[in-house]
Amino acid sequence: MKGIFITVEGPDGAGKTSVINELAPLLKQQLTSPLLLTREPGGIPIAESIRRVILDPKNIEMDERTEALLYAAARRQHLVQKVIPALEDGQLVLCDRFVDSSLAYQGAGRKIGVDQVATINDFATEGLVPDLTLYLDIDSDTGLERIKRGRHASQINRLDVESSVFHQRVRHAYLRLAEENPQRIVTIDARNPIETVTKSCYNVIQNKYPNLFI
Amino acid sequence: MKGIFITVEGPDGAGKTSVINELAPLLKQQLTSPLLLTREPGGIPIAESIRRVILDPKNIEMDERTEALLYAAARRQHLVQKVIPALEDGQLVLCDRFVDSSLAYQGAGRKIGVDQVATINDFATEGLVPDLTLYLDIDSDTGLERIKRGRHASQINRLDVESSVFHQRVRHAYLRLAEENPQRIVTIDARNPIETVTKSCYNVIQNKYPNLFI
Repeated sequence: MKGIFITVEGPDGAGKTSVINELAPLLKQQLTSPLLLTREPGGIPIAESIRRVILDPKNIEMDERTEALLYAAARRQHLVQKVIPALEDGQLVLCDRFVDSSLAYQGAGRKIGVDQVATINDFATEGLVPDLTLYLDIDSDTGLERIKRGRHASQINRLDVESSVFHQRVRHAYLRLAEENPQRIVTIDARNPIETVTKSCYNVIQNKYPNLFI
Repeated sequence: MKGIFITVEGPDGAGKTSVINELAPLLKQQLTSPLLLTREPGGIPIAESIRRVILDPKNIEMDERTEALLYAAARRQHLVQKVIPALEDGQLVLCDRFVDSSLAYQGAGRKIGVDQVATINDFATEGLVPDLTLYLDIDSDTGLERIKRGRHASQINRLDVESSVFHQRVRHAYLRLAEENPQRIVTIDARNPIETVTKSCYNVIQNKYPNLFI
């Protein structure tokens, strides 16, 4: 495929969404190819339907493996209908969370096992791996503190209220993934101010793909 | 687990449902333990929600791997909420279709690959395999002919109208599974009249588990 597939990952409170919101317009100004900014389920009706089943508060009896399979199913459909066509079209795809999130949250956080969750995601992606992953690293305490500061009580979602131990497992899984995939995953210190983190992300992309920039 | 887990499998037109409808009351009369007759999604709300996503005619763009992941997710939830509790309670569970159906239909029929589909189903079942599988074998031509005879046009579902070649792939996958799992899968000739097939199924169960019968 002609395009470039970049994912942004990180534990809650790493500032991922804020950074992406600053990064995307910067990239749009400077790239020679179109940019697709997306995240699952990304407006794909089938993926949206699946996500509704996952998030339906009536479904309190949902098993953790059922949930992991549903995330993989939504991922598959978003990939097939949105990401792959854009990559085939030569676009740069910037995706907010991808397989690594499932490995960290379902695999390690919920203790299903990273290898186990990798198996169903390999099925979902047919082995398609991002060209580059920007991992915004933050320690659990700072991440959780940011979440509490930044949101109204009504906005705190289910994952936010998981225990601190859960968040530590997620972070350690991310760190291990970064260690095991040094060619793909670049770790960025997310304790810095958003502007600094955004600039770091921008520089990593520019250094790796100088030909994509004006 | 104290119970016995029996699945009934077969290509479309093998007469599976008719046989089960005759077999279940016979077993109920003669068993010393309670019988649970079920099939996915089996009234489990989360599994029913997932099944609605699969069957929604609006979802024509559904990818085959997305569908396979959704079937595995619905299976997981049905297993956890219905089958496993019944087995732990010492019941005999008779389940109309299980993993073998996905291997035959998605793996071979839709050409995703039997091993690939086995991988996500292993994740869904955590390796729980039926104690006994009754495979009702029918050749594709006879099976398809029965479907056409037995139903009004309005009842013919999507799988029925798949090509004859598709049905041949499904049957051959079942035959191979039976060959590879001789301890678990018993092949029953489904060209015989329903009463004969039902009696064969009954005898297989009675011979394997004589202690369960009055």
